[in-house]
Amino acid sequence: MTDECLFCRIVAGEIPATVVISNERVLAFRDISPVAPSHVLVIPKEHYPTAADLAKADPALVGEILTVAHQVAEADGIAESGYRLVFNTGPDANQTVLHVHCHVIGGRSMTWPPG
Amino acid sequence: MTDECLFCRIVAGEIPATVVISNERVLAFRDISPVAPSHVLVIPKEHYPTAADLAKADPALVGEILTVAHQVAEADGIAESGYRLVFNTGPDANQTVLHVHCHVIGGRSMTWPPG
Repeated sequence: MTDECLFCRIVAGEIPATVVISNERVLAFRDISPVAPSHVLVIPKEHYPTAADLAKADPALVGEILTVAHQVAEADGIAESGYRLVFNTGPDANQTVLHVHCHVIGGRSMTWPPG
Repeated sequence: MTDECLFCRIVAGEIPATVVISNERVLAFRDISPVAPSHVLVIPKEHYPTAADLAKADPALVGEILTVAHQVAEADGIAESGYRLVFNTGPDANQTVLHVHCHVIGGRSMTWPPG
């Protein structure tokens, strides 16, 4: 946990969030600026800045995040209609919070390219 | 391996691809319809239809895919400027090949929403 990290503070319960799923190592909560009918962020409770940092430190936890993302899709009724998972790293991708997060986006048709 | 799967045939060397990285379990090759200066697909060599199927069967392999994605970013010189990782599942996300693949996209500023 880092004191200045917005998502660590959500994990700690210091900042409110609309939680969809919480288990031992992973938290899923709704994006406050949704871009689709379903838009949830899935994060590790432990702090890692980027997807690459997380993958290097704990490869299986990346798998847990994708499993929770699918559970989110099931909970929101979009597992069959489909969903897009997005990890942003660095300035060109406009990563806004330096605590790795997986966007789960669905409930409408997605276009291509993805931004 | 499934005989009809395009990406299994690329893994088997039956269909050509511009390979960026190949290791024991993961293959990275250039998308034939790039949407950015760098656009690479990272796949498990073993066949899994979706991200959720892979995450359930082999969580650590998801981490390996993200690690290879970062190696691709380093090879293409976009690890610092940034990149977006995208997994599409199902019709709303327009998943076109039913062999899980992670799009690594960078080399330009990405917009939001991601499609």
